[in-house]
Amino acid sequence: MSQNLKKLQNYMENMNRFSHVVTLLQWDMYTGVPKEGYDKHADAVAYFSTEQFKMSVDPKLKELLEILNTKEEYEKLNEDWKFIVKKMKRDFDRNEKIPQEVYEEYVRALSDSQRAWEEAKNASDFNLFAPHLKKIIELVKKLVSYTDPEKEIYDALLNQYEEGMDSKTIDRIFDNLKEELIPMIQKITAAELPKNSKFEGFYDPDTQEKVQKMLLDYIGFRWSRGAVGRTEHPFTLNFTSKDVRVTNHFYEDNAISAIFSAIHEGGHGIFEQNVKEELDGTVAGSCCYMGIHESQSRFYENIMGRNINFWVPIYEKLQNLLPDFKEISLEEFYREINRVENSLIRVEADEVTYCQHIILRYEMEKAIFRDNVAVEELPKLWNEKMQEYLQITPENDACGILQDMHWSGGSFGYFPTYLLGSIYDGMLLEQIEEELGSLDIILKEGRILEVTHWLNEKIHQYGSSRLPKDTLYAVCKKEVTAEPLIRYFKKKYSKLYGIQL
Amino acid sequence: MSQNLKKLQNYMENMNRFSHVVTLLQWDMYTGVPKEGYDKHADAVAYFSTEQFKMSVDPKLKELLEILNTKEEYEKLNEDWKFIVKKMKRDFDRNEKIPQEVYEEYVRALSDSQRAWEEAKNASDFNLFAPHLKKIIELVKKLVSYTDPEKEIYDALLNQYEEGMDSKTIDRIFDNLKEELIPMIQKITAAELPKNSKFEGFYDPDTQEKVQKMLLDYIGFRWSRGAVGRTEHPFTLNFTSKDVRVTNHFYEDNAISAIFSAIHEGGHGIFEQNVKEELDGTVAGSCCYMGIHESQSRFYENIMGRNINFWVPIYEKLQNLLPDFKEISLEEFYREINRVENSLIRVEADEVTYCQHIILRYEMEKAIFRDNVAVEELPKLWNEKMQEYLQITPENDACGILQDMHWSGGSFGYFPTYLLGSIYDGMLLEQIEEELGSLDIILKEGRILEVTHWLNEKIHQYGSSRLPKDTLYAVCKKEVTAEPLIRYFKKKYSKLYGIQL
Repeated sequence: MSQNLKKLQNYMENMNRFSHVVTLLQWDMYTGVPKEGYDKHADAVAYFSTEQFKMSVDPKLKELLEILNTKEEYEKLNEDWKFIVKKMKRDFDRNEKIPQEVYEEYVRALSDSQRAWEEAKNASDFNLFAPHLKKIIELVKKLVSYTDPEKEIYDALLNQYEEGMDSKTIDRIFDNLKEELIPMIQKITAAELPKNSKFEGFYDPDTQEKVQKMLLDYIGFRWSRGAVGRTEHPFTLNFTSKDVRVTNHFYEDNAISAIFSAIHEGGHGIFEQNVKEELDGTVAGSCCYMGIHESQSRFYENIMGRNINFWVPIYEKLQNLLPDFKEISLEEFYREINRVENSLIRVEADEVTYCQHIILRYEMEKAIFRDNVAVEELPKLWNEKMQEYLQITPENDACGILQDMHWSGGSFGYFPTYLLGSIYDGMLLEQIEEELGSLDIILKEGRILEVTHWLNEKIHQYGSSRLPKDTLYAVCKKEVTAEPLIRYFKKKYSKLYGIQL
Repeated sequence: MSQNLKKLQNYMENMNRFSHVVTLLQWDMYTGVPKEGYDKHADAVAYFSTEQFKMSVDPKLKELLEILNTKEEYEKLNEDWKFIVKKMKRDFDRNEKIPQEVYEEYVRALSDSQRAWEEAKNASDFNLFAPHLKKIIELVKKLVSYTDPEKEIYDALLNQYEEGMDSKTIDRIFDNLKEELIPMIQKITAAELPKNSKFEGFYDPDTQEKVQKMLLDYIGFRWSRGAVGRTEHPFTLNFTSKDVRVTNHFYEDNAISAIFSAIHEGGHGIFEQNVKEELDGTVAGSCCYMGIHESQSRFYENIMGRNINFWVPIYEKLQNLLPDFKEISLEEFYREINRVENSLIRVEADEVTYCQHIILRYEMEKAIFRDNVAVEELPKLWNEKMQEYLQITPENDACGILQDMHWSGGSFGYFPTYLLGSIYDGMLLEQIEEELGSLDIILKEGRILEVTHWLNEKIHQYGSSRLPKDTLYAVCKKEVTAEPLIRYFKKKYSKLYGIQL
């Protein structure tokens, strides 16, 4: 092996120790630390992440990356390491272009804006947040002018969360989808039944955690490299492929919510657990593309988890764990987990109307960065779009434009990746059925691990070492398109509601 | 404040960050990490504890400690800091005396010996462990010859775990106790009833954890500065007084075991949570004296937890959590949790015979270090003592001399602290009754927090800033004596068995 590569690996190994403890501190801050212990953890996070940051911008690292990117050294590397040293150099160069004072101003502004967003949301008053949002937008524009001067700004932002994706492609896909969805949702919601009161009850969180474990087992979560925790909002966190943790939130009056969070985070977790070991500890060792990541969590949650056949082999197990469900038939359960209704809150939306929530946000972000719509105009625009796409108008900003934290954290360009995930899922579903046969039958026969292994091989193992569109093309042999997702919705909901979509 | 003290505090703050993450990594290695994630944690522990060790032996620290121990600077310090800089200097000087190659040899030998002990225990063959034990004994003697050349060796070892305690004092106390216990145990065991089969059953670990939480709540464990975890062996771990964690092990066929582990570790935890804040992050900020620490866990577990009145206010709650217990009267429960029987395994022994297990180990350690009994002779000596003190002879070494891991880890002088804890408890019990009135009544009326507050004030707040014997003397106004413990045993078991002790 090249001496210089060995040096880089040693450097990374040391730097990774610092991010390792920062990750653990953060995990514990979410799952374990008692209230009064929080400050000491936060102090340690600040210290060790600063140390890690110093190492990541050290001239020694720059020199190593420059050497490894010379033609002679580069040619000696294998494909994985070619990707890694190229990406590390690109990241280093990008970050280096940002003047330190601009970055520091941005970090301070984020901290203020997150606090302001919380206050504004609690008071349901967009005006409290507007000046901060304006500032964050300006600073984000400024940062991009340093890092990606050659790119159209919103494309540069999209690229941060789903590299290789651009607004031209997304426009084409989302517009197509939106046109189909508006009448589809109207037909479905017209046929929707009232809520089933059988699901009301008390569900012990410990029991719900047993359900979570049963489900994670079933879908192929690997316990030798995985663990669970409880948090306010479910998430997945990973050290390396050998240590991946998923969390859940258990509502005592609702068993359904945590069931689907369990499957969703399980999908993220299975992805991370199956990135090939050689990539551990490198920039390719964890999937940093949000769209493709989300496609995996949603494939498990929606395409499989909300399919009646998923439950055929395990519904009795579920009923044994949740005795109240013995009164509920599989058919009733299936209908309940697929209720489609126009609602205000994105994170509570069903798989169909969810798409419109995202399209709305995507269009809002384009309005901000491309059409320079004034911040003050945004709530009105939001409400108009809600009315147009979901026939419902928020009664206040808290359940309207203030509901998500993303913008207060500077995450513009993130939202579209959620829907890209579902769009990829439509494509993956058709490809799986072509290669493995009917998903309904696979699930009904309890052969779900065949799907997990297929996803491991086709997607998970690559981590970040291949761009999403390249992964998709390699697997599905076609450009990204929403057509398969539309076909999936039409087929599923026509049957479920006995209507013509 | 003295500039030099400020410098020391900054130095300690930085060093503490390293021990903070090492503690967290260890916590997670016991409670959370998946199997395949273990190695990366272990690697990080090795790295950060080495960094922390380097800081602890750095000449800069030595210089600061020397300055602060000069008369002029020392006089400026408050009482707590006087203790801290003196103890830090003493520890520094002691550690400095050990040649590095001797220390490294010891660390390697420990690692080998712990592995050998596990193998020997599994094979129940003392011969596999004997050469390692011999080596550890030699190295321990060598280390003490550097650190405490002026002290009798076994006294030096005792001092490591209960500073200020010596074998002359322990001889006096233990001999007294042993003479009383032999006939007492014979009388009690003659009156003992067979095991009550009502306690057999299946107890869900999640339910047992709810019981643990109820008990911790009840005895005054502070959740704003505490958390729980599950481990193979229960223990307590603390970052600072504001973050103290206790663990438990739940056996599915036995609810009693985890109930008393919960109370025991809760006692340790309450101690650490109530050390005064000013001592956090210093050598006095956590109690490093094992005897006085154990006195607190045992006071909660035995003196209070095995008193029938402890359960009067909460037995119904326990029955609601463990419905099988609805068939069991409080009287039956009380009898079961106080079964006295001669048994082979220390950690499973009742509070009375437990004393003999410790006296035996204390005498064995004296035989090793004072009488230089050959290692090969130890199993025979062990078995003879077991027969003499508990009328029972181990059928093999695994349930005899190989049962505890302490010696394989070089922890000689540790065992006696367990019994010192109980002896202190006898004294504390009499003092509490003098000051607060009958413990039976306090417990029966659900006023246990009055005891917790008394212990907070008299013992816990001092952390390590006062030696155990000084703490005891300040509280009880008498030298350490086993008489109160003997009185406690006689009173309790005479009544329980209707016999004359």
